[in-house]
Amino acid sequence: MTLTVVGSIAFDAVETPTGKRDRLLGGAAVHFSLASSFLCETRVVGPVGDDFGEEEYAVLHDRGVLTDDIEHVPGGKTFFWAGRYERDPNVRHTLQTDLNVFEHFQPKLSEASRAAETVFLANIHPDLQRAVHAQCHSARFVAMDTMNMWIEVTRPSLEKTIAGVDCLIVNDEEVKQLTDEPNLVRAARAVHAMGPRVVIAKQGEHGAGMYTPDGFFALPAYPTADVVDPTGAGDTFAGGFMGYVAAHAGEELDDELLRRAMAYGTALASFNVEAFGTERMQTLTGEEIAERVTALQRITRFDAAPVPLRA
Amino acid sequence: MTLTVVGSIAFDAVETPTGKRDRLLGGAAVHFSLASSFLCETRVVGPVGDDFGEEEYAVLHDRGVLTDDIEHVPGGKTFFWAGRYERDPNVRHTLQTDLNVFEHFQPKLSEASRAAETVFLANIHPDLQRAVHAQCHSARFVAMDTMNMWIEVTRPSLEKTIAGVDCLIVNDEEVKQLTDEPNLVRAARAVHAMGPRVVIAKQGEHGAGMYTPDGFFALPAYPTADVVDPTGAGDTFAGGFMGYVAAHAGEELDDELLRRAMAYGTALASFNVEAFGTERMQTLTGEEIAERVTALQRITRFDAAPVPLRA
Repeated sequence: MTLTVVGSIAFDAVETPTGKRDRLLGGAAVHFSLASSFLCETRVVGPVGDDFGEEEYAVLHDRGVLTDDIEHVPGGKTFFWAGRYERDPNVRHTLQTDLNVFEHFQPKLSEASRAAETVFLANIHPDLQRAVHAQCHSARFVAMDTMNMWIEVTRPSLEKTIAGVDCLIVNDEEVKQLTDEPNLVRAARAVHAMGPRVVIAKQGEHGAGMYTPDGFFALPAYPTADVVDPTGAGDTFAGGFMGYVAAHAGEELDDELLRRAMAYGTALASFNVEAFGTERMQTLTGEEIAERVTALQRITRFDAAPVPLRA
Repeated sequence: MTLTVVGSIAFDAVETPTGKRDRLLGGAAVHFSLASSFLCETRVVGPVGDDFGEEEYAVLHDRGVLTDDIEHVPGGKTFFWAGRYERDPNVRHTLQTDLNVFEHFQPKLSEASRAAETVFLANIHPDLQRAVHAQCHSARFVAMDTMNMWIEVTRPSLEKTIAGVDCLIVNDEEVKQLTDEPNLVRAARAVHAMGPRVVIAKQGEHGAGMYTPDGFFALPAYPTADVVDPTGAGDTFAGGFMGYVAAHAGEELDDELLRRAMAYGTALASFNVEAFGTERMQTLTGEEIAERVTALQRITRFDAAPVPLRA
């Protein structure tokens, strides 16, 4: 029932039309693990610098996240990202990216992390993703994220990494770019042919679609009137999805189960955007999550009562 | 149970990476009425020129569409639109727009059209939309479309038109532009404040969302691997939606009913894109529509089986 995630641990500086924060705990592995922690035991693998202290560890520990495999690089600085969102939070500008300790990161997993049955390879260099995957000897379900830069710069390595995983979780545009196929159905089929049997295309405010050999499932985003900070929403979605999968690792991972996992991912992501950084996830309760999953069911349900059609 | 639609009747020239057609029957009112004809009696109001002949009328008559209020302008030419789609069918270039008989169109409705309980004002000048609405003395549910040009050029008139209708059916971007609000939930609330109690935001390949005072409903688009010609998909959606509403005009138009209407609109739109112009709608059967509505239910359904959450 353990889930291991490898990915960035970061400090973020975020600017929106309504506010500005200079130093938020962030990074894909952080957003992911805070979400998955509601559903299963989660171990984080990634590097931090001297500036990563007790306060930051406490946020993870308070949610029961296991941090033994967070590697402290003496004399190093933690990964830093600065970005600005326009009034339309779909429009984001990256102002600064300092790799810092991530530049020479070589993931070394403890036996406990290697033994995880469920593994998430967050958006890092595909060589590193593969290095982690190779160490996970008991993995039954491995998912990964990636981004346009790796598609453009490291395609051969990326394709090798993708070929080995069970599930690809990326944005709409990334599925299309990866497969050079503007139609999502065909793009998903092309990914299936590369290896993964599950393809999830995230569509921001429009939700997400899941393509498996058995069918298609789509879930809208929960309608949120107050999007404060969208940073990490995709990783939080992945955390909820993978957390649900990990919590059911002993069962058959069929479409029914993966659909429910999508619902938890979607519910968790909708909370994450309600406040800056990890703030909302720190106060979130299991009751709130359960309520939102029910709400998602309510906003997607309709009766298909047959009507007489004029043929 | 009669539905009246006013809007363009056109010839379209369409170019896609896989084919080219110089003269297709098109226009919002045509796409709309072919869809609604499966659900209710539909009357079309709009102008045509001398080039609009028996062949074109036959397409409408074969589906039982009533064309008495199609106004033939002697010596005139029918509205013409030419467009080109890129490999990504979401990217469309308008190559030519000839208003022709539409330039001086003044809608004059027969008593039969004026008596309709359900009315759709397709995308035309908001003054004309209002002129039609004013004639419909028995209208119980009036919906309208519009476009960026009217928002930019005729905002005061457009706002007056919107204030009088029950339902606005437009694209995502248009709701945002109309209300100057990038968040869809807030944008929909702003439209509610303008008058309409139902706001439908169409999202192309991502489906559509419906906002009412009672709640939110979202439905994905049916996943189609072969999009041949997206022209008229939005009007076909509106036709299916309004056709369902018109078929139930005597009942309470609550959210349950409007959700089912969304499903019929979505199903019909998914067929429309499978071939050029109106070709697919001409061969479509009621059985195919019913099957697709069921399929939509299948791709959106999930169990929210509660799981133990680690609070």
